[in-house]
Amino acid sequence: MKVKVSRKAHFNAAHRLYVKDWDEATNQEVFGKCNNPHYHGHNYELVVSVLGDIDKETGYVMDMKTLKDLIKAEIEDAFDHKNLNLQVPEFANLIPTAENIAVVIWDKLRPHIEEDKKLEVILYETPRNFVTYTGP
Amino acid sequence: MKVKVSRKAHFNAAHRLYVKDWDEATNQEVFGKCNNPHYHGHNYELVVSVLGDIDKETGYVMDMKTLKDLIKAEIEDAFDHKNLNLQVPEFANLIPTAENIAVVIWDKLRPHIEEDKKLEVILYETPRNFVTYTGP
Amino acid sequence: MKVKVSRKAHFNAAHRLYVKDWDEATNQEVFGKCNNPHYHGHNYELVVSVLGDIDKETGYVMDMKTLKDLIKAEIEDAFDHKNLNLQVPEFANLIPTAENIAVVIWDKLRPHIEEDKKLEVILYETPRNFVTYTGP
Amino acid sequence: MKVKVSRKAHFNAAHRLYVKDWDEATNQEVFGKCNNPHYHGHNYELVVSVLGDIDKETGYVMDMKTLKDLIKAEIEDAFDHKNLNLQVPEFANLIPTAENIAVVIWDKLRPHIEEDKKLEVILYETPRNFVTYTGP
Amino acid sequence: MKVKVSRKAHFNAAHRLYVKDWDEATNQEVFGKCNNPHYHGHNYELVVSVLGDIDKETGYVMDMKTLKDLIKAEIEDAFDHKNLNLQVPEFANLIPTAENIAVVIWDKLRPHIEEDKKLEVILYETPRNFVTYTGP
Amino acid sequence: MKVKVSRKAHFNAAHRLYVKDWDEATNQEVFGKCNNPHYHGHNYELVVSVLGDIDKETGYVMDMKTLKDLIKAEIEDAFDHKNLNLQVPEFANLIPTAENIAVVIWDKLRPHIEEDKKLEVILYETPRNFVTYTGP
Repeated sequence: MKVKVSRKAHFNAAHRLYVKDWDEATNQEVFGKCNNPHYHGHNYELVVSVLGDIDKETGYVMDMKTLKDLIKAEIEDAFDHKNLNLQVPEFANLIPTAENIAVVIWDKLRPHIEEDKKLEVILYETPRNFVTYTGP
Repeated sequence: MKVKVSRKAHFNAAHRLYVKDWDEATNQEVFGKCNNPHYHGHNYELVVSVLGDIDKETGYVMDMKTLKDLIKAEIEDAFDHKNLNLQVPEFANLIPTAENIAVVIWDKLRPHIEEDKKLEVILYETPRNFVTYTGP
Repeated sequence: MKVKVSRKAHFNAAHRLYVKDWDEATNQEVFGKCNNPHYHGHNYELVVSVLGDIDKETGYVMDMKTLKDLIKAEIEDAFDHKNLNLQVPEFANLIPTAENIAVVIWDKLRPHIEEDKKLEVILYETPRNFVTYTGP
Repeated sequence: MKVKVSRKAHFNAAHRLYVKDWDEATNQEVFGKCNNPHYHGHNYELVVSVLGDIDKETGYVMDMKTLKDLIKAEIEDAFDHKNLNLQVPEFANLIPTAENIAVVIWDKLRPHIEEDKKLEVILYETPRNFVTYTGP
Repeated sequence: MKVKVSRKAHFNAAHRLYVKDWDEATNQEVFGKCNNPHYHGHNYELVVSVLGDIDKETGYVMDMKTLKDLIKAEIEDAFDHKNLNLQVPEFANLIPTAENIAVVIWDKLRPHIEEDKKLEVILYETPRNFVTYTGP
Repeated sequence: MKVKVSRKAHFNAAHRLYVKDWDEATNQEVFGKCNNPHYHGHNYELVVSVLGDIDKETGYVMDMKTLKDLIKAEIEDAFDHKNLNLQVPEFANLIPTAENIAVVIWDKLRPHIEEDKKLEVILYETPRNFVTYTGP
């Protein structure tokens, strides 16, 4: 009996969307307001889900407390109140779009989830824009 | 790396559920209050999702601004503050249930989404009733 | 010790905003899309609050179940799945704007609330537009 | 054209997480605060979804009113304002974790859904913790 | 320039509503399902607000971090995952209705808020039932 | 009959909390993570309310469309996707705490609201932190 367990978390961060190799006019055309060189920011809402078998004894797929602590250690402590472009190494050469942030979060969490379980990441950049990544 | 990007939108509309070929008693039995001949209405909340590969250069699956504009042009401008039965041609001979509205929205958006990407439509008729359509 | 107790409810309805004595051009200028002669509609969310002293014995200001039943009998049964202009007598000669609907709801509930208690009505026409009325 | 229709419901209940065969220290280590012998409780939010073909005539996959009544009869009447461990027979020998509650809900609803339709249950234990079960 | 700053928090608890001096029939008549002798429970959502002058230097009425820590120490640590009737001393002889819980929370927080500031407590027992208390 | 009409809006921005005249250690002690010199950011949710008499003819206190346009022109266009410290003149010498931002928004909107009407601003910095300002 496979069940998906999900835990919500959140972090606040600043970012800027632009391609270093492009000139300013092209960046402005593609990224518009998100290309502001002084940065803007978001309250990112995160939903991390793990799909696996229910443990017969505990009734858990995964202890939600463990999942909560893992998200805090790997994601919140690394991203919260940070400038993603300048202070999070994964984005030194990767545009911090919602899509790319979701992939980075998935890659950071995957090694900590048991191999036979599946992992899904949903990231809300705003209450109206969000992305979902379930792995390669 | 396939990611699903989602955008929320909304429109307000009036509708009535009834089958023209049925007598009033049958319509009342099947559709109850929704068969009110003077219409009733809803704030429809819409979530449109597109699944595809992240563009290596822009970090986007699809520019959310483009998706937002597409939903406005194709759906909001056509449905918002309208009587679905009387003023939206797709429902001239189709009951505007949440299920059928979702299919109509999907059909209207599909030609505007790149062929190698998948499209999903979620439509909330009320905060407690909603439907999901991912294509035929 | 005065405490305010609040109960949420909801109803779906169709309406049209226009002044019968005005010509069509003026109605269109003032009410825009809301003047659609074929009606449009909303999921109205309602919050009814009663402020009063806590009953020492029961610990209640007012039994929430009683308040819930009152809202159902007086408001939901009268407004839900209705065309406000055509089927709710209070709006035969009163434009069903959110402001006026809130006042009508307050007036309908007030006689059923104990005299020494205060009544407040909040009405959401959409998740982004709402009104509050606390009496004359 | 397969569409998934979803209906939200809710119930409030008390529960305790512990394994009868374990000693107190082990229960405390595994379940922490959830092992409180005097119980604690939650507002459970439930989303039940049914996936199937749209009926050509009615435009419905399943009448939402029927689904609402089914959830009330099978789940809300059995679980609401109850102590899950002591008053719901399914948990006499099954720990009422969110995972197990979701499976029990699915098992109780499945016989009432037409065989060619699929059933999904999402259960929120808190706004930040939830589980999804789609069957064995 | 007086500004009201608000912080949301939450706790989960079990409770039972009944008057010890009443017989079972009267308790059942007044409190219905809430009188379940085996308890039921809720996810309580709490909004604590402090009204006061903005500090010219820091731009704060009160550091939200301080308010968050205060709510945790005084309320969450005392109430979370507890049986309010049996494990929270304030309710040994006081029915834990939402009204009374809000008053108890206000009384516990008031001594920790500067005297010239006002305190408000909003407590959601469910998403549809909530109470507000601003002091005697 | 005075009614309060409310309109929600939102903007995304980056900011940093620090006092220019303080040394780094003091800023860090008072503002903690919010003192990040590379900025962080938020999705600010804004609720603007106007209290006044209902116009007998239109049924409006104030046309919500007018209020929406006013918020866009005065607040969203000035703050959205901006760095509040560097790009919004009002914060050149004022710390952009939620409290101060709410006061600045109130001051910018007040001249555009009719004199006999009252104005209220609620600003959510995160879903758990928000402030309310009703004027001096």
